[in-house]
Amino acid sequence: MTTLLDALTASDGVEILDLSRPMVLGMPQSPNHPQYRLTMPRRHGDALRADGGSAANDMLTTGTHVGTHIDALGHVSHCGDLYGGVSAEDTQRGGRLKTHGVEEIPPMVCRGVLLDVPTALGRPVGLDGGDEITPDDLEATVAFQRSELRPGDAILVRSGWGRLWDAGSAFIGAESGVPGVGEAGAQWLADHQPIAVGADTIAFECLKPGAGHALLPAHRVLLVERGVFVIETLNLEVLAQRWIHEFLFVLSPLHLVGATGSPVRPLAVIS
Amino acid sequence: MTTLLDALTASDGVEILDLSRPMVLGMPQSPNHPQYRLTMPRRHGDALRADGGSAANDMLTTGTHVGTHIDALGHVSHCGDLYGGVSAEDTQRGGRLKTHGVEEIPPMVCRGVLLDVPTALGRPVGLDGGDEITPDDLEATVAFQRSELRPGDAILVRSGWGRLWDAGSAFIGAESGVPGVGEAGAQWLADHQPIAVGADTIAFECLKPGAGHALLPAHRVLLVERGVFVIETLNLEVLAQRWIHEFLFVLSPLHLVGATGSPVRPLAVIS
Amino acid sequence: MTTLLDALTASDGVEILDLSRPMVLGMPQSPNHPQYRLTMPRRHGDALRADGGSAANDMLTTGTHVGTHIDALGHVSHCGDLYGGVSAEDTQRGGRLKTHGVEEIPPMVCRGVLLDVPTALGRPVGLDGGDEITPDDLEATVAFQRSELRPGDAILVRSGWGRLWDAGSAFIGAESGVPGVGEAGAQWLADHQPIAVGADTIAFECLKPGAGHALLPAHRVLLVERGVFVIETLNLEVLAQRWIHEFLFVLSPLHLVGATGSPVRPLAVIS
Amino acid sequence: MTTLLDALTASDGVEILDLSRPMVLGMPQSPNHPQYRLTMPRRHGDALRADGGSAANDMLTTGTHVGTHIDALGHVSHCGDLYGGVSAEDTQRGGRLKTHGVEEIPPMVCRGVLLDVPTALGRPVGLDGGDEITPDDLEATVAFQRSELRPGDAILVRSGWGRLWDAGSAFIGAESGVPGVGEAGAQWLADHQPIAVGADTIAFECLKPGAGHALLPAHRVLLVERGVFVIETLNLEVLAQRWIHEFLFVLSPLHLVGATGSPVRPLAVIS
Repeated sequence: MTTLLDALTASDGVEILDLSRPMVLGMPQSPNHPQYRLTMPRRHGDALRADGGSAANDMLTTGTHVGTHIDALGHVSHCGDLYGGVSAEDTQRGGRLKTHGVEEIPPMVCRGVLLDVPTALGRPVGLDGGDEITPDDLEATVAFQRSELRPGDAILVRSGWGRLWDAGSAFIGAESGVPGVGEAGAQWLADHQPIAVGADTIAFECLKPGAGHALLPAHRVLLVERGVFVIETLNLEVLAQRWIHEFLFVLSPLHLVGATGSPVRPLAVIS
Repeated sequence: MTTLLDALTASDGVEILDLSRPMVLGMPQSPNHPQYRLTMPRRHGDALRADGGSAANDMLTTGTHVGTHIDALGHVSHCGDLYGGVSAEDTQRGGRLKTHGVEEIPPMVCRGVLLDVPTALGRPVGLDGGDEITPDDLEATVAFQRSELRPGDAILVRSGWGRLWDAGSAFIGAESGVPGVGEAGAQWLADHQPIAVGADTIAFECLKPGAGHALLPAHRVLLVERGVFVIETLNLEVLAQRWIHEFLFVLSPLHLVGATGSPVRPLAVIS
Repeated sequence: MTTLLDALTASDGVEILDLSRPMVLGMPQSPNHPQYRLTMPRRHGDALRADGGSAANDMLTTGTHVGTHIDALGHVSHCGDLYGGVSAEDTQRGGRLKTHGVEEIPPMVCRGVLLDVPTALGRPVGLDGGDEITPDDLEATVAFQRSELRPGDAILVRSGWGRLWDAGSAFIGAESGVPGVGEAGAQWLADHQPIAVGADTIAFECLKPGAGHALLPAHRVLLVERGVFVIETLNLEVLAQRWIHEFLFVLSPLHLVGATGSPVRPLAVIS
Repeated sequence: MTTLLDALTASDGVEILDLSRPMVLGMPQSPNHPQYRLTMPRRHGDALRADGGSAANDMLTTGTHVGTHIDALGHVSHCGDLYGGVSAEDTQRGGRLKTHGVEEIPPMVCRGVLLDVPTALGRPVGLDGGDEITPDDLEATVAFQRSELRPGDAILVRSGWGRLWDAGSAFIGAESGVPGVGEAGAQWLADHQPIAVGADTIAFECLKPGAGHALLPAHRVLLVERGVFVIETLNLEVLAQRWIHEFLFVLSPLHLVGATGSPVRPLAVIS
């Protein structure tokens, strides 16, 4: 059998595509989550070692659902229950999740599939705010791409909204809404038994103009009912531009015990 | 050519070993860096959506050289210079690194090699505080393991100090010192042109009893002189216990623009 | 001699007016400063003592120039110098101010004077964005109120902009500008030798529409040239509504060693 | 009637004693609360205005029960109830206190009394870890000092433990215990109807050697049963050294909406 290391060794090296967004003060982020802030408590020259050495360091303050990130199952509850009927109240007592925290997300080295919906639907600019990605859209995309979905895949659903990443609050889409998978699409995806699904928007949801986060049915379906992890704020443009629909997907959440989510830097390995 | 995805697909799935330490309040960390703290600004039940949905989230506050982490080249300077003769003063102006920040570390999907020094040296308990891992020790380990080092590898050097992870301040080793690679060993490693080197201690250094961080020659050699990234606080016991010396190494730092380091969750893929 | 305590004892008690704004997530704050965030790491019931006792606590994360706050002299430099010709570069090495930090601001129990400019100028709604409060305006206000300014006073200059505190970003005034004392007015105030001056705006400055914080001449005059502390984001409506122009002023900055500013809760004692 | 301002004006100015401890990284603090950390996101020279102006600012991260601080009534519950039978569960829902938060503590300009217990008891070095200050001790101190306690006073109880402030973890007293008022003394104090009580230790309690914070009966009596605010980590040495037992006490908590406590800088005005 050829191991991944064998394959790596036999090749000239691999090409790695970065599916994350750079984290920087001022990037679009939901006001529901603590602001990303990186400061330097110590700079070079603040203290000098006897040999002329010096070091700088950082303090990171951020929500865990900020930038490209993954949701743990314990992020969302429905009528008091987490996935598997676990009591949210009991689980969170003590100030961090005793079950369904980020440390229970298995680090992923698995098959990844991009579903490039706007390309399949003939909408090269990308979907508009409020557009719902339906099961039919997902079926059409699979057919258009001639992709196959297999259990255990990470399925990344492109809406094209990533074009607004650099447009500040437009990416949040408070007024315009945001395109995305709705309840039915979430069920369709879950039926394919992925380990995780991902989106190029801040929330893996279809948000209607002005509706905000009043209801998050896709989160309920995926995290609470079906146990599928959710990845958000992905950069999927790098895959779409190169027409790459299938790849080795790598995602390793921080080992934050009891957290509801983690910033991540997912990768597509394409050779 | 067999791609990594081909290899993955052909296999029954891969086994992944987690080389990180769990991040939790109270874990050993250097007092030089901001304390790790995860809090929940919002808990389940704080707000209920009309359909019974609710969400919990986190606020993460931490140094970036806390838990298992990687040092960017800009973390350390010598006589005012960073790697390549870049001025530390200019680079840090503005409050984050303009060059040699974490975002310049290439995400790694590469060959990884464990150098299990205490096993090779016949010291099954592990090295003691202050023990220096010399070029001879490294040579002996390579020979004992019959390993091969290749340019671009991630070389992870086990001292056995990881046995003290659960022992609190003993892991810091303020009084005992900490075993590790010294200046000569760092040169030896750099001569093998790794992309990165790693250790199972908080600092990739040999720290003499009571000496603290007065001098950090291995950091100077690796980060300032040779441009080799440094990974610290690794869990290497999981590799040593299974006698695994060669593996597919995966490390994807957070996309923290301008940071001097990043917490990470490195993986060894072993099939 | 009657001490303050004697006066207090002889009275029925004092009336205290709170000159601060409530600190809460979402209040207007300058994007130049870290976001105010209060979270509860521990809530009641997270841990129970044997006798049924439990405790909740907080984590506070904030800039120090957020909400009602005072600027230390070291907050602003001009051409590299702080007040008294102290080198900014030397003073800040190490990551906090070695001189001119908040701990050098004497806690204040002193005479306070409100200069209610819009009332004196016959503009009951308050000044508009961009309106500069000139020396003539200040003279006219002193005359109108029949107030006397004495060395050592805290002089609080009302513009009426506090009416927008609850209007969110309008209080910041990025587009509208913000009314305030300009360079000439700052000189006029400093000539009266106050211990501190204050404003009901985020910055003690006249900001022209769209100009933002491009230039801050009043800060230069007060903090760098004249050594006068600056208090910002005061609630002066409570004084103006009751036509109170003279009072015992109390301000006690947090004892933050080396900080450039501190959130404060200043008081006017009016009997 | 002579107002406080009249008294101030008639005097040559007032003398103010600072009853706070300086806040600095490394000061003694309880591990139950987030670490105090002040960093400078922006330093002088990071950005220059056109006229040569520049500014530095801070990011403050801290627990609210760190350094000299005051406890809001909502800090402690007993069997699920806060002061007045308010439900802790309901009050804290949403992530901050809806009642009994810091914003409900009235800023204090009132009579303050120091009860210098060790001096009265003939123990000039100060009490030892674990020593309980009993009602008899308090009575003896009042008699020795010829002090009078009046409703509405702030009563500050000196144990002499402040001598260890600079001794690091000894001030915490994990092994030695800490001297302080026990349950009976708390009842005695509350019977005198103070607005607040204070101590020169981290917790207003008698902590037996090795017992830690297992039980906090004085907190229960004061905060839950009697509605008396609690001030901790005061510097009372400055009063004791000058044999000052009565003074104008000033304390103005930060206006932190919904917080369980606030760092403060209390003052004694002594002329």
